[in-house]
Amino acid sequence: MPVAVEFAESPAKSLRVGPGFSLASVDPSATPGYSGAKADGKSLLAAQDARLTELQEKLFAEGKFGSNKRLLLILQAMDTAGKGGIVGHVVGAMDPQGVQLKAFKAPTDEEKSHDFLWRVEKEAPAAGMVGVFDRSHYEDVLIHRVHGWADAEELERRYAAINDFESRLVQQGTTIVKVMLNISQNEQKKRLLARLDDPSKHWKYSRGDLVERAFWDDYMDAYNTAFEKTSTDIAPWHVVPANKKWYARIAVQQLLLDALEGLSLEWPKADFDVATERALVEQS
Amino acid sequence: MPVAVEFAESPAKSLRVGPGFSLASVDPSATPGYSGAKADGKSLLAAQDARLTELQEKLFAEGKFGSNKRLLLILQAMDTAGKGGIVGHVVGAMDPQGVQLKAFKAPTDEEKSHDFLWRVEKEAPAAGMVGVFDRSHYEDVLIHRVHGWADAEELERRYAAINDFESRLVQQGTTIVKVMLNISQNEQKKRLLARLDDPSKHWKYSRGDLVERAFWDDYMDAYNTAFEKTSTDIAPWHVVPANKKWYARIAVQQLLLDALEGLSLEWPKADFDVATERALVEQS
Repeated sequence: MPVAVEFAESPAKSLRVGPGFSLASVDPSATPGYSGAKADGKSLLAAQDARLTELQEKLFAEGKFGSNKRLLLILQAMDTAGKGGIVGHVVGAMDPQGVQLKAFKAPTDEEKSHDFLWRVEKEAPAAGMVGVFDRSHYEDVLIHRVHGWADAEELERRYAAINDFESRLVQQGTTIVKVMLNISQNEQKKRLLARLDDPSKHWKYSRGDLVERAFWDDYMDAYNTAFEKTSTDIAPWHVVPANKKWYARIAVQQLLLDALEGLSLEWPKADFDVATERALVEQS
Repeated sequence: MPVAVEFAESPAKSLRVGPGFSLASVDPSATPGYSGAKADGKSLLAAQDARLTELQEKLFAEGKFGSNKRLLLILQAMDTAGKGGIVGHVVGAMDPQGVQLKAFKAPTDEEKSHDFLWRVEKEAPAAGMVGVFDRSHYEDVLIHRVHGWADAEELERRYAAINDFESRLVQQGTTIVKVMLNISQNEQKKRLLARLDDPSKHWKYSRGDLVERAFWDDYMDAYNTAFEKTSTDIAPWHVVPANKKWYARIAVQQLLLDALEGLSLEWPKADFDVATERALVEQS
């Protein structure tokens, strides 16, 4: 198989949200750091699956032997931006045994009676695991901000609480990868229409998507503020252009690969004498 | 792509445990109902992935629209038989969003203070989901029987409780697929040695596996009795020959496909007027 076109610059750098970042300044149709075309991207995605799976298995194996390392991918986006595709096509390549996926929905009455982080803490990945949040505690500073369900003071409290919470996760051994899939308002329209034009996609359509769509600019403001308040050195945000689904997928895959490579994962050393065990098995 | 060699007879029939079944009478190296070779099996596995994923997505979609249908795959086996491979290579093809995987370990102190089904009920798949039990409530009539942790009377109570429990799951809309991966004692020896010969597999080796291996015949007896007591019309057992990993994978894949095909799944009909919504999206 020919070698697939790889990233010239890692998305961990080129897509990272730094000081002064603004969503208005980035192009949701761009492919930063990647010179290949769609076909190249698809080849790259497939070619890297095995590496991703191997690294994830090493993480899992280390976890069984006392390592506290773990990974948490946080996915946020406007509707139709492709969170589901990331889960299916990027996360899906990993071994289900090592993945803890949580799709956060509107909170239940019980959840609402607690602090907003109460239900999130319970879903933090265990040692050795890859946690994936499809939506997250960031909804509490996004949709809540847009609709005024939390006032300015409460929002400030939440940004600080999020940073404290994520800092504690990092201290526990978590590498946090925060991703906002960035589609344009026009691309969302196309995708909503495509859902309506395909009966096998009707179940994914909801009038609610249209309601939120009307608040597009408010959401962009809420995202920009969330980035400003919570894109920290220990848990930076990455804004992934997502008008091209194939690009978003390889970019997130590369973010996961880079995060896992950074953990210097090793197969756990045997805590037994191999020759002794071999002899015992032979005799059994 | 050439059409892959398919099953001549469905494993749902040929591998089903009926009255008078005995593990001693089946060959763990056989490939019942399948005339193809290893390469054919691998092609079939890959070729059916898309169909499995589509059916699972339909199940998930129906669940969102009020259907109570769901699937539960129960995997039991001696160590090294390949449960992990089934999870990774068969279940792994499905969308993680629609899969609820639970690997049951030795019970915690809290779990032990409850009835053996207490922790299992909590993991029953929700409507629309595919649940996968890697080990299950059957451990409570297998390892418990082998080591005498439950007496004859308690075991009888458990068989009956299991049948009641599974009957209730079925009444709730669950299709239960029970699979025992059947390897030979000699094949297990080979696989344990292979683990010891590969440093990247050392973390999977445990002296405990060897301890249980010494009780092989007792386990076979415990399985035979469990089959006799719990292979019911509504939730039959299937014994899948597993010395050939590729065969076990296509057999379990086919069991899942047959179970899902049997549910007459349909994409949910739109509960909205498509033209109206289209116009609203266009204007938005």
